[in-house]
Order: sequence, then C-alpha cells, then structure tokens
Amino acid sequence: MSQNATELFDENFNELTPSEFFRKNKQMLGFTGKIRSLTIVFHELITNSFDAAEEAGILPEINIDLKRVDKEHYILTHSDNGPGIPEDYIMKVYCTMFAGSKFRNIQSRGQQGLGCSGCVLLSQMTTGEPARVISCYEENGELKGVNMKFKMDVKKNKGMLMEKEYIKPEHTGVCIQLHFKDVSYSLSEQGAFEYIRRTMIANPHAKITFRDPSGHKYIFKRAAEIVPVLPKEVLPHPKGVSADDILFMAKHTDKRRYKSMLTTSLSRMSNKRVAEIEEMTGIDMNKRPKDMKWAEAEAIVDSFQKMKFMAPPSNGLIPIGSEQIEKGMKQILKPEFVATLTRKPVTYKGGVSFIVEAGIAYGGDAGRIVNEQRKSEIMRFANRVPLTFDQGSCAITEALKSIDWKRYGLKDLDNTPLTLFVNLISTQVPYLSTGKQSISPEPEIVHEIRQSTMKLARKLQKHIRSKKAAKEKAMRSKVFEDLLPVIIEESAKLGETSVPEYTQVLAKVTKRALAELLGEKVEEEEVEEEEDALIMEELDEFGYAVDEENSSLNSSKDFDDLEIDEEE
Amino acid sequence: MSQNATELFDENFNELTPSEFFRKNKQMLGFTGKIRSLTIVFHELITNSFDAAEEAGILPEINIDLKRVDKEHYILTHSDNGPGIPEDYIMKVYCTMFAGSKFRNIQSRGQQGLGCSGCVLLSQMTTGEPARVISCYEENGELKGVNMKFKMDVKKNKGMLMEKEYIKPEHTGVCIQLHFKDVSYSLSEQGAFEYIRRTMIANPHAKITFRDPSGHKYIFKRAAEIVPVLPKEVLPHPKGVSADDILFMAKHTDKRRYKSMLTTSLSRMSNKRVAEIEEMTGIDMNKRPKDMKWAEAEAIVDSFQKMKFMAPPSNGLIPIGSEQIEKGMKQILKPEFVATLTRKPVTYKGGVSFIVEAGIAYGGDAGRIVNEQRKSEIMRFANRVPLTFDQGSCAITEALKSIDWKRYGLKDLDNTPLTLFVNLISTQVPYLSTGKQSISPEPEIVHEIRQSTMKLARKLQKHIRSKKAAKEKAMRSKVFEDLLPVIIEESAKLGETSVPEYTQVLAKVTKRALAELLGEKVEEEEVEEEEDALIMEELDEFGYAVDEENSSLNSSKDFDDLEIDEEE
Repeated sequence: MSQNATELFDENFNELTPSEFFRKNKQMLGFTGKIRSLTIVFHELITNSFDAAEEAGILPEINIDLKRVDKEHYILTHSDNGPGIPEDYIMKVYCTMFAGSKFRNIQSRGQQGLGCSGCVLLSQMTTGEPARVISCYEENGELKGVNMKFKMDVKKNKGMLMEKEYIKPEHTGVCIQLHFKDVSYSLSEQGAFEYIRRTMIANPHAKITFRDPSGHKYIFKRAAEIVPVLPKEVLPHPKGVSADDILFMAKHTDKRRYKSMLTTSLSRMSNKRVAEIEEMTGIDMNKRPKDMKWAEAEAIVDSFQKMKFMAPPSNGLIPIGSEQIEKGMKQILKPEFVATLTRKPVTYKGGVSFIVEAGIAYGGDAGRIVNEQRKSEIMRFANRVPLTFDQGSCAITEALKSIDWKRYGLKDLDNTPLTLFVNLISTQVPYLSTGKQSISPEPEIVHEIRQSTMKLARKLQKHIRSKKAAKEKAMRSKVFEDLLPVIIEESAKLGETSVPEYTQVLAKVTKRALAELLGEKVEEEEVEEEEDALIMEELDEFGYAVDEENSSLNSSKDFDDLEIDEEE
Repeated sequence: MSQNATELFDENFNELTPSEFFRKNKQMLGFTGKIRSLTIVFHELITNSFDAAEEAGILPEINIDLKRVDKEHYILTHSDNGPGIPEDYIMKVYCTMFAGSKFRNIQSRGQQGLGCSGCVLLSQMTTGEPARVISCYEENGELKGVNMKFKMDVKKNKGMLMEKEYIKPEHTGVCIQLHFKDVSYSLSEQGAFEYIRRTMIANPHAKITFRDPSGHKYIFKRAAEIVPVLPKEVLPHPKGVSADDILFMAKHTDKRRYKSMLTTSLSRMSNKRVAEIEEMTGIDMNKRPKDMKWAEAEAIVDSFQKMKFMAPPSNGLIPIGSEQIEKGMKQILKPEFVATLTRKPVTYKGGVSFIVEAGIAYGGDAGRIVNEQRKSEIMRFANRVPLTFDQGSCAITEALKSIDWKRYGLKDLDNTPLTLFVNLISTQVPYLSTGKQSISPEPEIVHEIRQSTMKLARKLQKHIRSKKAAKEKAMRSKVFEDLLPVIIEESAKLGETSVPEYTQVLAKVTKRALAELLGEKVEEEEVEEEEDALIMEELDEFGYAVDEENSSLNSSKDFDDLEIDEEE
C-alpha cells in the first residue's frame, strides 16, 4: 500500500555516520575482491608509515609480518620507526573516518583520513576481532609508550577501548596488529608482494622487511641513504582558488581584515597585490572577513584571473629525482637500457602545481611475464605510491596509450619487454575516487606525462637503433674479416710474392672505414619543436579544449629554481 | 624543522564532516568536468523524483527548465509530482550528507543519501547562491505546502534556513531551484540531453518536459500508461549475510532472543530452520541478542552456508519488462530490428538477487553517429538509471566486450548500426564508486549479461541472414521473371504455337519451387547447450573462478514464480 510523505519519511529516513556509510559501501574504500582487499590494506599502512616517518625527518623502516592462520584468515603485524601517535589520538586515527592530519595543502601520500580506519573496519567486519596498537612517542621531551586494544563503534564513528597498558619504550614508532578473513595473499600483479616491490622502486630511501605467509623473509634494502627532504605546507595559489574557497577562508579565519586574510592565506599575495585588487574591484580591503558576501568573493577571484602571478612556490614538491628513480629501476628490473627524467614543476587547474617524473626500462627483467612471454607494463605512482587498480580511467594510462609508439620504432608495444614508470608529485593529486587508484585526466597532467615519456621514448629509439646498427656492423665486419685474408693470401700466391702483414690494416678498415662506407651514421634528427606543435594538435583531437591563453602548459619559466635532474 | 608526534598531532589533526570531506573531494560525487557535472545534477534530481513518485504509487511526471544566465552560469528549476517532503526533512534531504531514506534493502535508483545534497553543495560552491525548495505534501490527511530558501553549512553538515513561507498547495510534489556555474549544457553522448533520452528508454511510464537553454521545449511522452508496481523491501537472504551483519543486527534489534531476531531479520528463515541451526551449532537460540559474540555469529553464518535455502524472494525486484523495453527502444531508435528480453532472477555473492534485462536494436536510428558514420553504442542502466561515465571498468561493458561477436556474423562490431541495451535490477547494485556510474564485475552478473545478450545476438544473426537470403532470392527470382517469359515466347514462336498463359505458373515457381531448388532453407542450428558449456569455459579463461558448487549460475529454478516475459 502506498503511503503519504510524512509516513514514508517518519518510517524510513535516517542519518548514517561515515563509518556506517562505508561499512555498507566498503567497495568505495577499494575493498573489492580478496586479493585487492589485502593489497589495499598494505597500501594504507605502508603509506601512513612513510608519511609519518618523513614528516618527522626519519628514514622509514617498516617490518611486516603476514601469518596465515587458516585458509583466507590472516594476522597482519605492521610496525614502523615513525614518530608514533600520542595516546589521545590513537583511536581517532584508527576508528574515526574523515579524521586525520592529511587535510593540509602539503605533498603527502595519504590525503583523506580514511585509510587506517578503513583497515580497522575491514578487519572488524571480516573477523570481529579488535585492533591491537602499540604506540611509542615523545611528549615534553619524554619517551612514552602505550599498548591498546579497541574496536570501532560504527554507529558512533569512534573507538571503544577494551584494554590499555602503559609500557616503557626504547624508541618511537607504531605497531598495529589486525586480523583479516576473506582476503588472500597473492604474487600476481595486483597482489601485496608486487605492491611492495613497486613501492621500493619509488622509495629507494626506505627499508621494508616482509615475512610472507610461508615464513620466507624478504629484505628490501635501501638503495639510497638520503635523509628525505621534508615537504613544506604551501599556501594555495590565487589562480587555484574559487569564490567558495575565499568565502570559506573568510568565515574561518582569525584575521581582522580582508587584507591580512588574503596575504596570510594565499601564496604570492603581497600588500601591493591587495592594493591592486582593491583598485580593480572597488572593495574596501579593511573590511571584516566575517562579513564577506559571495559577490565580493567572486569579484576578488575574478580579479585574480586578470592578474599575473608567479607560479606557486614549488618547494612544497619533493620529487624522487631522476637519479634515484634510475637506481630503483636498475636494482629491481636489471634492464638493458634505462632512461629517467624529472620535469620542472607546472600547474593544473590554474594554480595547483605538480611535477611529472618518468622512466623507461627496456630488456632484462623489464616488463612482466604473461604466458612465458615478456609484455610491456605500466607502473603508475602518485606521490611515490603505486597505483594498482582502476588503470583504465587514469591520466597516466590515457597519456601513455595516446602516444603513437610506432613513431618511436615500437611496432608492437604490448609485446615489448618494457616498463614505463610515471610518478605524479603534487600537494593535491586529483584522485577519481575514494580508493585513490586513478588520477583525473586533467589536460595539463596528460600533456606533461606525454611530453616526458616521449622524450624518453626518443632515447630508447636511439638505443634500439644503434644496437641494431652495431649488430649489423659486426656481421658485415665479420664477412670482411673472414674473406679479406683469403683474398690477400690467394693474391700473394698468384703474384708469387710473400703475404704482407695485413692484420693491423684490416682491423682499422673493419672498424672505421667500412662502417662509413656502408653508411652507418645514425641520424640524429631533432624533432622537438615540431613535436610540441603536434602534441597540441593531438591533445586537441583527444578531446581536450586546449585554451592557449589560460593554459599553464608553457608556464614553467615562471617557476622558482629547483634542484632537479632535468634531462635534455 | 621536524616535530615530535605530540606537536604534529596537536597542530594538524582534525576531523571533517561528510560535507567538508566532499567539498574537498567533489570529484568523488561525480563532479568532474563541466559537461559531466551538469549531467550528474540531472541524474540525481531525476532519480530522486522517480523513486519518490513510484514509492508513493504515482506515475512520475517531471518538468525541467534550464536557463542560461551567462556563459557557464545556469539556473535549473526541477519540479515533480511526487509525494513531497515534509517540512522537517527538507533541509536534511538537501543539506545533510549520508542522510536519506535509501538505506533499506529495496530496489531503488538512489542508494546512498548523497545525491541531492551533492547538487546543493555544487551549486553553493560554484555560485554561493542558496537553494530554493517548494515542497507540497500530505500530513494527517491535510495538504500542506512550504517554500524555503537555505544554504548548506558544510562545517556542520546541515542546512541554514534563510527564508520560510507557508503556501496553499494544489497537489503534492517538490520543486527545487539551483544556480550553477562552471558547468555546461551539451548535446554530446555524456551531456544532459542524452541522459534524458536514455532515461526515457528505460522508463516508458514516465513523462519529462524539458526546456533547454535556447528555450526549445521537448516533451518526452509516456509510451506506456502503466501504474508502476511498488517494489517491496526484502529481508536479507541468509546466504548473503556476513558474521558482521548478524552481529550488527543483534546489537540493534528489539527482539529478545536469537530465534526471533533471525526469523524477523532474514528471509527464508523459519522456526524449523532455526532449530536446525541450533542443532548444527549447539548455540542456545533463546539467548539475548545483545550478548551475542563474534564466534557465535560466525558459527551461525557457517551453518547458513551448509544449509539449502530457497533463493531470495524476487517480488522485491520489478524489471521494466521486455515488452516495455521494446516499446521504449522502438519509440526512440526506430530500428529495423529489435529484440529484448528479461531474464529470471538469480543471485550474486550467494544471496543478493538481481535481474538482467537486455535489448538489441539494429538499423534505423540505432547506434550513434560519429563523423557521419553510424557506430555501435552500449546503453548501460542500473535500476532503470542510465550509467553515463566510467564505462571502462563496468560489468556491462566487460561482459559485452567479451562476447565473440564474429560468431554472430558481426565482423566489425564498432562500425555496425547497433544499440546494445542492458539494465541491471537489484535491491543492491554493487557500484564501484560514490559516483554510481559503473557496476562491479561480479562473475554471476557478467555471466547473466553475456547469456542474455548472446541470446539476442542469435536472433539478430537470423534476421541479418534471412534479410541477406531474401535479397539474394529476390535477385534470382528477378532473373527468372525476366528470362522465362522470353524463353516461353521464343519457344512458342519456334514451335509455331500460341503463347500459353504462364503468368500464374511463373509466379508460383518463382515464389516457392525455385527457392527450394536453390537450397535457400535457413539453417536453424540449435547451439544452446554447447554454448552454455562454452560460456563457462570462457568465463573461466576470463579470470573468474567459477565455483560450480557455490555458484548461483544455475540456481534460477529455486526462484518464486514471477510474471516476466521470458524469451526462449
């Protein structure tokens, strides 16, 4: 029987907490499928440990132990050497969704305050077991330690303490132990082991020790003993904020005037610029932020769009660096050829800066083995974190697939032993979903990925060409080396003279003169400029509106100088 | 300078409301890109109006007016004839995220309590304008009306009232007016207009009047005047619940014993079955649910897995029906050939029932025009709602792409004027993300989609074959019709007799006898069984573990009888 609105609503309307919502929609946290679910758990815990350690200026070191209790029932123990979590925050970190320290405008692996609590939720949903956390941290110069057992109260979106004990720690760090069922450990491309392997390529400064369910212990050693540079929090750039952002700042600032609010909340914003805005908009910059109206916020943002600003400071962005990527790729892939580069910072959406890093490895262990044949593979990273799922809709996949690989001599990309590496560094990675597995294809990001990969593809093309040329040359030389002595000796016989000493001359001839004779000079065409034009065209065809005027595609000149390995 | 944990957390840790979270991550609500953002707004509002009307037993009728105020600035006015929203719930519906009446186990288009509030959030973020809502509803037999203006307080995840006025209504319904900037109206495949068109194919019982920004008025009329059947709320099936679900029920039930809790919370659960569980597990079924422990919940769920249950009641599922789909496709696509079917209900993940409906339209306006050539297109639907984005990872796309179309005589699927329609009906559609644009490729779902589409593909193959045969036959008949009279007349001349009356005989010959003579019988091979085996094989290859024992692939026999157009 049908009901009227009041009956319908009184009976059926209710409000969920974030935890309740995600309990019903765990696939939105990336928890779909047994293999994927476990990989996502590894991802969330490793990511958090790395971020915490680096933020505290510590070289990350992680120990992971995965025990199989039963078929599809595991106990995961994950410990790090980070700064630890103060007692009061432990249950908030692990049991409250949308809570965290990841909401600032800073480059970090996590961004959402969902990861850790998602792992606890999955553990609880599949086994009913509580989480066990030991946290050791410094407070007022003193080393403190606490060992807690708790569950998540999903109706309240917070933790329920079950046991607590203070301990005497030796050093800082967090150790968490969780039970999982309905997950499975796999060596496949989407499995937890491969996740660790890829993590190590992009984080050669870290150390991970992993004991797998069979008891085998893998030690991924540091390839580089560099103390990680601490990324800085960066104020938003005027070109990247909306009227809503300005209004939101105004409502929540502690500043007394528009002027001071703007100069302290935005980068590149001086008193001089504020005066320009005042002149352009006619808005009194001494007014109280609390009173700001939408129209004013909009007028201010419109004025930003008409002004020229230096690009956002890029000292908030710490790329891996091409040398480090090369080290990582060499150590793990042992390729015949490798080329890497780190681009200069540029911006997307007008004001969010990002850096693309790319690498190509060819031959050796590059690519992955499918049915005993080596195929090409794409390794996607965002802020050094491997992206394992949802590759179809990702900016990186889209950019790489749009490259005309035949132009670089790769006629059958799929069946080439090739690893393509792309890492996107940004204070604000535009993820497409809560699972953080794919990057929104913003035109500027796609452009940068294409540009950098095509540069490397040209190098690979040269390598393959000269390898082929060298092989052919060697073959032809061999013909001369085999035949000339016979001719010389037979001629000597015919002329009834003695055989001359020809070996040195022959060596010279086969090495240099013959090569030239056979026209083996490798063409070194320079297609850069022509190519840039072509890219704009292709981007256009690709369905992107490339708005030349407002585009940041060519704005890298404005950037601060930054120490990067920029490859030509 | 690096900080210790306490400093880091005290300075940086905070908690977000769901609204704040989605304000920072609006792409997770599907709001990415100007065209897509507007389409998602249409989707959310239409979806809500349909659900509300149908739940109240009303034939849905919607008026949409999209005014362009300025380039990329629109005012959208959307009104429906549904039951309305009671005053106290209006701001909750439109300003509180994770609130709604959509969390029950019932077939509905929306599921998440995010849609409407997402639209208000986007409007406010892009224009700063408040929402205006007029709601007319029935309360205690009286018709009430209220006109409200409000904004969303994202820090509090609730509404802020700005104006309120009571009005005298004529009938029930809701009208909402929202401003949007940074969106754009487009006629492309992903645009708002196409969204309405597709909606009408799957909802021939609805009426939509749409005035576009140019002032043109489109009236999509009802193709069928059927009062929609009200889907019923269905209790979860024992095979589809986890230990966590049982424990969650136990903690929040008002029943006093395990026994009564189980029989009232689950479908197919009688006292007799509870007695069986008691015997199997040794758990006293007279215990108080509040005291239930995980181990008991797990033991109960384990016992479910060992028992045989009837499949879930499928009266909660109301398919469109193959006749209705055919009507919809004919009206909108005017195809040369159309075939549709509605499958019997089956289950995925052991206990969630679903129905697949499929349609193929060929020729006429089927397919879509790209560069003046007709290409094939896939129209995906879930509970009658068009899915417009993220098609790459969707079960429907995956299933259709995995079909070997060459076997059905379509050598170049891409360039065939073909529309493939698939609608998935379920109380719980496994969406892959908050944007609700793609369905998780559960093996049973992929299987059903493949099965149904292949059945239709066979019919299409016959149609194309017999069309081709008829054409050839006509050509050959024509040769006889042209030549025989000449031969007869010439023979008569030679034999010096008069020309016999041959027209009737000739007509017979060309129509019947000659056709047989030329061997034109259309082969009617029956490949069904062989094909089913093949499908299992293909599914297997496809990477799905088809667990024959626990699979519901063949379990449709168990289902209640249901009035469906099942095509053979």
